[in-house]
Amino acid sequence: METRVLKGRPIAAGIVEEVGRRAAALAGRGVQPCLAVVCVGDDPASAIYSASIERAGGGAGIDVRVVRLPAGAGTDGAARALAALAGDPLVHGIIVQQPLPRGVDPSVVDAVPAAKDVDCAAAGSLGLLARGAEVFAPCTALAVVEALAAAAVPIEGAHVVVVGRSAVVGRPLALLLLRKGDRGNATVTVCHTGTRDLATHTLRADVLVAAMGRPEAIRGDMVREGAVVVDVGVNRVEDATAEKGFRVVGDVAFQEVLGRAAVATPVPGGVGALTTAILLRNTVRAAEARARER
Amino acid sequence: METRVLKGRPIAAGIVEEVGRRAAALAGRGVQPCLAVVCVGDDPASAIYSASIERAGGGAGIDVRVVRLPAGAGTDGAARALAALAGDPLVHGIIVQQPLPRGVDPSVVDAVPAAKDVDCAAAGSLGLLARGAEVFAPCTALAVVEALAAAAVPIEGAHVVVVGRSAVVGRPLALLLLRKGDRGNATVTVCHTGTRDLATHTLRADVLVAAMGRPEAIRGDMVREGAVVVDVGVNRVEDATAEKGFRVVGDVAFQEVLGRAAVATPVPGGVGALTTAILLRNTVRAAEARARER
Repeated sequence: METRVLKGRPIAAGIVEEVGRRAAALAGRGVQPCLAVVCVGDDPASAIYSASIERAGGGAGIDVRVVRLPAGAGTDGAARALAALAGDPLVHGIIVQQPLPRGVDPSVVDAVPAAKDVDCAAAGSLGLLARGAEVFAPCTALAVVEALAAAAVPIEGAHVVVVGRSAVVGRPLALLLLRKGDRGNATVTVCHTGTRDLATHTLRADVLVAAMGRPEAIRGDMVREGAVVVDVGVNRVEDATAEKGFRVVGDVAFQEVLGRAAVATPVPGGVGALTTAILLRNTVRAAEARARER
Repeated sequence: METRVLKGRPIAAGIVEEVGRRAAALAGRGVQPCLAVVCVGDDPASAIYSASIERAGGGAGIDVRVVRLPAGAGTDGAARALAALAGDPLVHGIIVQQPLPRGVDPSVVDAVPAAKDVDCAAAGSLGLLARGAEVFAPCTALAVVEALAAAAVPIEGAHVVVVGRSAVVGRPLALLLLRKGDRGNATVTVCHTGTRDLATHTLRADVLVAAMGRPEAIRGDMVREGAVVVDVGVNRVEDATAEKGFRVVGDVAFQEVLGRAAVATPVPGGVGALTTAILLRNTVRAAEARARER
């Protein structure tokens, strides 16, 4: 079987284009969509990610306001900054960069109101997702759903096996896929490090999502012929031959699933390439909802 | 295979006894554990349930304070009552009886703080559960886990198939079973009305939990020989031969699983008989946590 390699960048480009149109329509009504990106401390990866959000936002007509706090701001400083953004009518979406430095209680993000919580970081937003209510789902989980939709993979009625139970990917994705309606209604199995006989479960999947953060842990013989494989993993592995001394691989042994899977997403360049576009789309949705309220 | 019929009442009695000991210990330190039961309007089923909580609480040394509001209290009235209970240092647990009358926004329960949310009703509490944080899980989901533990059924590493994705049972139960550690770490599949070929999934279960609210929908031939079957369903079906004109059945065709399942819970008298005891245990835990804080 020839495997269709599903790349994220073209899908992301389509989303960004749509976001740009919607942002322009809002601008015509005097509303400038704005995403606040809160960075506490100076994690280099966060800085790179913030810059890429700024760049992408600029290209789509979304104002990206990066709010930098010193690592010493503490829980109180972070909470004050979030409260100000929560109350600011000109800010439509808020995302807090992870990881937070020690000294900042991770539960500060719970203060982000659901209407602005464009990455579903707060406990209340996650609870609304679990309840099946309308809420912004986490961007990475949405990226998986978006990739499947772009490849016209049916989700409704499919048996989706998610390997990984993290609070940011595995569990929210399971909740998202279980929702009623369009792009939901899947039968979902969640596997993890405690799963006995993992291959038995993965071989049953119509759609297999790898999100456990273990380099190339899903081997070719764990994938059913004709299955759809979505790789959420981003792992650095040492590689003396690479310029930087490492290369980035997913949770799936990609070469081994080629020729077995019907569809497979690569790493890098797969679903990871979609998350920023989806963050911007959630932001423009938040701005539209806010504009409707006025 | 002889099926062990697992009844809830003896397990509940053990829990209530333990709660009584812990409540007495707290009382010795001047803390009277107190559960507030909020009833809005006069749903007859709620009234019966409240009375049974009062009775059980009385037997275990838990003060049960029933707060009755008229159906016309509206969202604001309910919110005010909940805010008062949330701020009352003498109240350790709060439960809001369902269903709420029309005119009361169901999201009022989101105002119950996690520390007092002894049935995990608020979105924030459910989100904490989804995140894998320490929080009171919903009593019905806990009743399933408690029944399995009482029968010494291993949960860790088991494949648990939950049929039903409701916000009060199916989804929280899946989240609870996925947590790391003791009584968690299961591999979990969630099936529902949108599942294709339900029997294929149910036949794979080590532990099958029926929670879809359809009378006797799980037939004998959908259960693997030697599986453990937990029935959460409570359905009234017409029965002209019964005194009240109906009888109560579960989601499992109980007679058909006898002789196939290793363990099965009956309806009535199975996990349903455990929920009030667990509500009281969550309340005494909340009171203990509060006493430690002082």
